[in-house]
Amino acid sequence: MAKKKKRFIAVIGGGECSAQEAELAEAVGRELARRGVILVCGGLGGVMEAACKGASSEGGVTIGILPGDNYRAANPHVQIPIVTGMGYARNIAVVKSAQAVIAIGGNYGTLSEISHALQSNIPVIGLNTWSLSRNGRPDNSIIPAQNPAEAVNKALT
Amino acid sequence: MAKKKKRFIAVIGGGECSAQEAELAEAVGRELARRGVILVCGGLGGVMEAACKGASSEGGVTIGILPGDNYRAANPHVQIPIVTGMGYARNIAVVKSAQAVIAIGGNYGTLSEISHALQSNIPVIGLNTWSLSRNGRPDNSIIPAQNPAEAVNKALT
Amino acid sequence: MAKKKKRFIAVIGGGECSAQEAELAEAVGRELARRGVILVCGGLGGVMEAACKGASSEGGVTIGILPGDNYRAANPHVQIPIVTGMGYARNIAVVKSAQAVIAIGGNYGTLSEISHALQSNIPVIGLNTWSLSRNGRPDNSIIPAQNPAEAVNKALT
Amino acid sequence: MAKKKKRFIAVIGGGECSAQEAELAEAVGRELARRGVILVCGGLGGVMEAACKGASSEGGVTIGILPGDNYRAANPHVQIPIVTGMGYARNIAVVKSAQAVIAIGGNYGTLSEISHALQSNIPVIGLNTWSLSRNGRPDNSIIPAQNPAEAVNKALT
Repeated sequence: MAKKKKRFIAVIGGGECSAQEAELAEAVGRELARRGVILVCGGLGGVMEAACKGASSEGGVTIGILPGDNYRAANPHVQIPIVTGMGYARNIAVVKSAQAVIAIGGNYGTLSEISHALQSNIPVIGLNTWSLSRNGRPDNSIIPAQNPAEAVNKALT
Repeated sequence: MAKKKKRFIAVIGGGECSAQEAELAEAVGRELARRGVILVCGGLGGVMEAACKGASSEGGVTIGILPGDNYRAANPHVQIPIVTGMGYARNIAVVKSAQAVIAIGGNYGTLSEISHALQSNIPVIGLNTWSLSRNGRPDNSIIPAQNPAEAVNKALT
Repeated sequence: MAKKKKRFIAVIGGGECSAQEAELAEAVGRELARRGVILVCGGLGGVMEAACKGASSEGGVTIGILPGDNYRAANPHVQIPIVTGMGYARNIAVVKSAQAVIAIGGNYGTLSEISHALQSNIPVIGLNTWSLSRNGRPDNSIIPAQNPAEAVNKALT
Repeated sequence: MAKKKKRFIAVIGGGECSAQEAELAEAVGRELARRGVILVCGGLGGVMEAACKGASSEGGVTIGILPGDNYRAANPHVQIPIVTGMGYARNIAVVKSAQAVIAIGGNYGTLSEISHALQSNIPVIGLNTWSLSRNGRPDNSIIPAQNPAEAVNKALT
């Protein structure tokens, strides 16, 4: 009998975030866990922590790929800390380890993750996040979602 | 009630290996899983694959931190592939993500992992692996083990 | 007598580019060299090659920080190839090694470099490149320039 | 007329070092510069600084590939600081950017560089540095040199 393929989705966003972004992230985390999806993130606070909290509350698995040298920097809801010691270069591993990326809000670090994902042909779903235009023309590569459930649906298709 | 702390041990060694090394690695993997330890490795073949196979056979969790851009390069016993796209720089993440490292045989890539672990004060247990001397004097930082069970015991203390 | 501080400016853009972008890049390279600025780039073709060509033609110094394992991938106008073997993680070193960044056109790789630069508070000057908005509001962090001379002027102030 | 190919040699060793090691490193740096070779190193103190000092004193070019986020961490004799922000992963770029490596003394970081060089088939010349054996048998990949001039000679052939 075929083993069911596991799915990995990255949730990216600021290490500090608004209450509204945290709510979105937590809801995304819960929804991913309910669907049996493994959550990948950068392992720190803000959106990452809220998403891990949501996933953990539903019994999901959470992976945090950390920039520094110590697993203790991980938020308390990271179950599997990956310690890279490579600073922001870890952003690349966060997105490459996922089949799709959900971006919530976010600053330039999040934008770098969006860029690396798009460069690697990994779909990016956006909730209240960056939008792009190139040489004056809109680039619609970031797939917009209106709410956490829709973001997860789009990430899984 | 306190949540029991999870433990992560890295198993490192050649991407190709002898039958004897594969046996050692598989036994190490089995023993780690029996003790509830999560196995971290570089995710490819040889010693890495044998260790993952052993761990999986006992229901253990296996993480493979991959050098390339595609999770499909992971051996079939890797449950959690981390895709770094950073080549041998991933060696650093392999050892830094563990509380101790067990080295089995191995070539220069393994030696780089041993070096990075010792540099980060992560204990290294050796089974038929490298030994070092510095400026003519033996460096005994690699803790020798006679067999897989002893290696795991030493890694856990 | 005080040694005059050397200046490093990164020129970023697509590995393939339009003829117009190549012209802009070459002019930027020439202008940087005339001002005694050292050019840093990703070392490959397109905008990177045109910029290095321009700089070399005026006797400037060119550094190419390469993603792969072989210096031979550098374009012929790179004088100092840095070989990272780390794939797109090298994008971070390209921008961090500069005091300012000039972006010309570019795809998602360029956008990742813009992001990493802004995250590190390194000014980014744009010539026909990306523009950003965040959560619906324009982010004007990329400083627009109308032509190569203006781009270099702005990068040096 | 053919452009003469530039040569890059890496000098590796501890960020702190003995007076004798510093003397060796400075002599190696001087000799490299006299031969028109560009010096690559990790950009910090100890052996790296002494080698850069020697090279600079003879008008040579020095490149320092730094682990941190700030070029100011470079020793004062680094002319071209490359800022990686990637921690010890920069060790890989140090050796890969060279056609040969000269190791002087050194700790585990140096050993990791030796390992990465040997893994990439880049010759390593040793002055009072590590020696290796694998599974009980000596590994003679590190080419011994008795003095700085011999080290440079061997690195260039």
